Amino acid sequence: MSKSTDTELAEKMKIQLDKSKFNEWYNAVTDLADLTDKRYPVKGMNVWTPYGWRLMQNIDMLIHHEMVDTAHQEVCFPLLVPEEQFQREADHIKGFSDEVYWVSHAGGKDLDIPLLLRPTSETAMYPMFALWIRSHADLPLKSYQVINVYRHDTKQTRPFIRMREIHFFEAHTCHIDFEDAERQIDEDLAIMRRLCHALCIPYLVLKRPDWDKFPGAYYSLACDAMMPGDRTLQIGTIHQYRDNFAKAYEIEYEDAEGEHQFAHQTTYGMSERLIGAIIGIHGDDRGLILPPDIAPYQAAIVPIPKKGKQALIASECEKLQTTLEEAGVRVHLDERDIRPGSKFYDWELKGVPLRIELGPRDLANDAVMLVRRDTGKKEVVDRNAVVAEVRERFDQIADNLRSQAETRLEESIHTVHHFEDAMEADGIVRVAWCGNEECGLLIQDDIDKSMLGTKRDVDASEDPFEGNCLNCGKPTTTAAYFARTY
Amino acid sequence: MSKSTDTELAEKMKIQLDKSKFNEWYNAVTDLADLTDKRYPVKGMNVWTPYGWRLMQNIDMLIHHEMVDTAHQEVCFPLLVPEEQFQREADHIKGFSDEVYWVSHAGGKDLDIPLLLRPTSETAMYPMFALWIRSHADLPLKSYQVINVYRHDTKQTRPFIRMREIHFFEAHTCHIDFEDAERQIDEDLAIMRRLCHALCIPYLVLKRPDWDKFPGAYYSLACDAMMPGDRTLQIGTIHQYRDNFAKAYEIEYEDAEGEHQFAHQTTYGMSERLIGAIIGIHGDDRGLILPPDIAPYQAAIVPIPKKGKQALIASECEKLQTTLEEAGVRVHLDERDIRPGSKFYDWELKGVPLRIELGPRDLANDAVMLVRRDTGKKEVVDRNAVVAEVRERFDQIADNLRSQAETRLEESIHTVHHFEDAMEADGIVRVAWCGNEECGLLIQDDIDKSMLGTKRDVDASEDPFEGNCLNCGKPTTTAAYFARTY
Repeated sequence: MSKSTDTELAEKMKIQLDKSKFNEWYNAVTDLADLTDKRYPVKGMNVWTPYGWRLMQNIDMLIHHEMVDTAHQEVCFPLLVPEEQFQREADHIKGFSDEVYWVSHAGGKDLDIPLLLRPTSETAMYPMFALWIRSHADLPLKSYQVINVYRHDTKQTRPFIRMREIHFFEAHTCHIDFEDAERQIDEDLAIMRRLCHALCIPYLVLKRPDWDKFPGAYYSLACDAMMPGDRTLQIGTIHQYRDNFAKAYEIEYEDAEGEHQFAHQTTYGMSERLIGAIIGIHGDDRGLILPPDIAPYQAAIVPIPKKGKQALIASECEKLQTTLEEAGVRVHLDERDIRPGSKFYDWELKGVPLRIELGPRDLANDAVMLVRRDTGKKEVVDRNAVVAEVRERFDQIADNLRSQAETRLEESIHTVHHFEDAMEADGIVRVAWCGNEECGLLIQDDIDKSMLGTKRDVDASEDPFEGNCLNCGKPTTTAAYFARTY
Repeated sequence: MSKSTDTELAEKMKIQLDKSKFNEWYNAVTDLADLTDKRYPVKGMNVWTPYGWRLMQNIDMLIHHEMVDTAHQEVCFPLLVPEEQFQREADHIKGFSDEVYWVSHAGGKDLDIPLLLRPTSETAMYPMFALWIRSHADLPLKSYQVINVYRHDTKQTRPFIRMREIHFFEAHTCHIDFEDAERQIDEDLAIMRRLCHALCIPYLVLKRPDWDKFPGAYYSLACDAMMPGDRTLQIGTIHQYRDNFAKAYEIEYEDAEGEHQFAHQTTYGMSERLIGAIIGIHGDDRGLILPPDIAPYQAAIVPIPKKGKQALIASECEKLQTTLEEAGVRVHLDERDIRPGSKFYDWELKGVPLRIELGPRDLANDAVMLVRRDTGKKEVVDRNAVVAEVRERFDQIADNLRSQAETRLEESIHTVHHFEDAMEADGIVRVAWCGNEECGLLIQDDIDKSMLGTKRDVDASEDPFEGNCLNCGKPTTTAAYFARTY
């Protein structure tokens, strides 16, 4: 939060960022770019500083727009869930009970009923859904909320990636039958595609193996992005619950024939991990690189001072700022009394997609200098065409980030047919699996990678493949994906 | 959430709303208008349903804009505060310890340090402020967040007015000295004026007596609105902390001379109580009346069907909706297959400021019918001038709500000079008070009303007054305000 001075920036500049040492790089860049403050004295709970919070809000805003366009309605449920309500779905309790925070007293007295902090909101919402839904005319019910969830995760915490207080998006839907719930899942996948297009993040959609599905789900789809450090990151999940929770929470409706039926349900979840993916996938040795659609500042104007022309340059920079703001560009004019070089360094660290320099020479030529964060490319452009030029650069930057990341994801997938190759391969390995749980678990252990799963519909030749199960040798047309994960 | 049918609405219509019985009315109208769902099984924690949540979000959006305009930066601090950190400011602990929820175990194990759910965020934020602030160049620090706070209040709960999970806005600022903190308070008061202008809520700004100030504050200003049920509602508070918390949390800065100084601090808080005030102050026997600036729907279009012209009317209604949406009006076209009368009833209940009817006669005359929610007044206006006409009605509705409420507030204030009059008077009584705590407390008890306080600066003849203290009889120029409160 400190308003950086030349001295403070000079201190920062001494820290050499090296993305090839990913863990150290990640830890340093989240600090240096003022994305979060990790000094809050509760493990796994950091402070959202203004810059990081604006980034999160911009992502949330894209999600809100997607929700409005797809007729989801925003709700906000209480944080605290009564014990009894939490314990109605057996698999769900088993899956979460090791991670749940409990509130058992208040104001010096024990509470009548122990309450827990939601680790996710199924158990808060579904008893209410049972009250809201009466007839088929009430379906589909499409709700979502953006809130925090709390999970006392015992693994090593990492900002945005593994937290105990998690900024969370969750959509919960109820449908007349399994098929309508499947259509919802198609819609969710389309939303994920549009959102990740804006974030320039490519990913695989994989159906998790049964032993790794969401507690209480019929099946779980997960979106896995390839991160540096040779691990994948789960950035979104979509669960088909069938009528499993509906039976536990009595979510019933009267169909057109007057018969009582259980609703079929889905959920779709994402979190601040999207920021973790953006940092990891796009960043470089100079710091963050933020996709233009969600960057808090899409462009930073840096005046290049010249004796005797200070006021003129300052005034032209202000005009430039106004022009861009009026065109809807999120632009910041950096008027700090520090050297331009310090400003360049600072905005590069913070990942601002485009730097706009305006100095005496530009002034003389009625031009401005555009500097792309992703490539470092400098271009002098006509001052009068600046809005169009800036917009064109944003598109180019997004295209470049996207295609670089796509290439890296594709290159990280290795189809292999032998154990040794599967063990040695980096990234994501794609191997033959007969579908048997025992074989899957053995392969996991032997190659020291987790099974991410298979494509959603292997029968529909979404992922054509032929091979012999890596464990039992049985011929199969199913490819399973394995990787080390964050 | 249920998509109301004729039958369901007919059930609702049987409930007779009578605002003169305020408590019952308030309870019924919050249910009937789908503002909240009170059936969540934790006392004082309700579900924000889509309609209520949109209303809250619209209010929050006005606050966000005010914060941006006044250079506050949004942050988001963790919910959980370590015990030690909470206990550094003695008065603050004393004030809140009876209401605090404690988290003492997670995943079946005791936590190393007990954590509490923030009842407000001073104790979460200030240790971090101590790290963020180094020099006078870092000041003023102006932060705010919109989050939930948790208070195990033992009084009777009431939706939006007295909850245990509270949707909360809190601004926290740090300044070089007392005077700069005072200037911040002036800015906060100006923000409150602009915000409440939009909400059409008049209020008194009163300096709470010392025995009722915020725990840890040097002084507290509160904004009190006059509600039905003969009680006032505190809808906002602004606290001057001086360097009291800064000393407890070591928030120090180096001044221009290199000397270490403690920062002076203020806070400004508001909550979902703003909705409570809107409901109570503007509503009537037909339901809510929402000020146009924050109504989820500013206008509802109701087609008046006519055999043989159904499709034509429907298509004209769609065109009307598009015209208004393109002009930035939040408009809803009610296409439900229920009687127009049921729709009228429903939108009146929900407080939509303007109803727009379009039927065969309007079609013939190239007109639409506007019906004001506040007055019930019907006016046929030119279809081609509809945007301007609608906007004009919004202004008229807001002006009318504001002036009605202002009149009621003014009429509720009674300046009295005798005990009997003070006891018998309804509303807010304004009486002479010598300034002595003992006298103030005795007057409170004797007239069975709480002291709200005095004007901020009685010396500056903000509130000219002459009288003899109602308890000791000493002559005084200070007027104190008393009322029963929610």
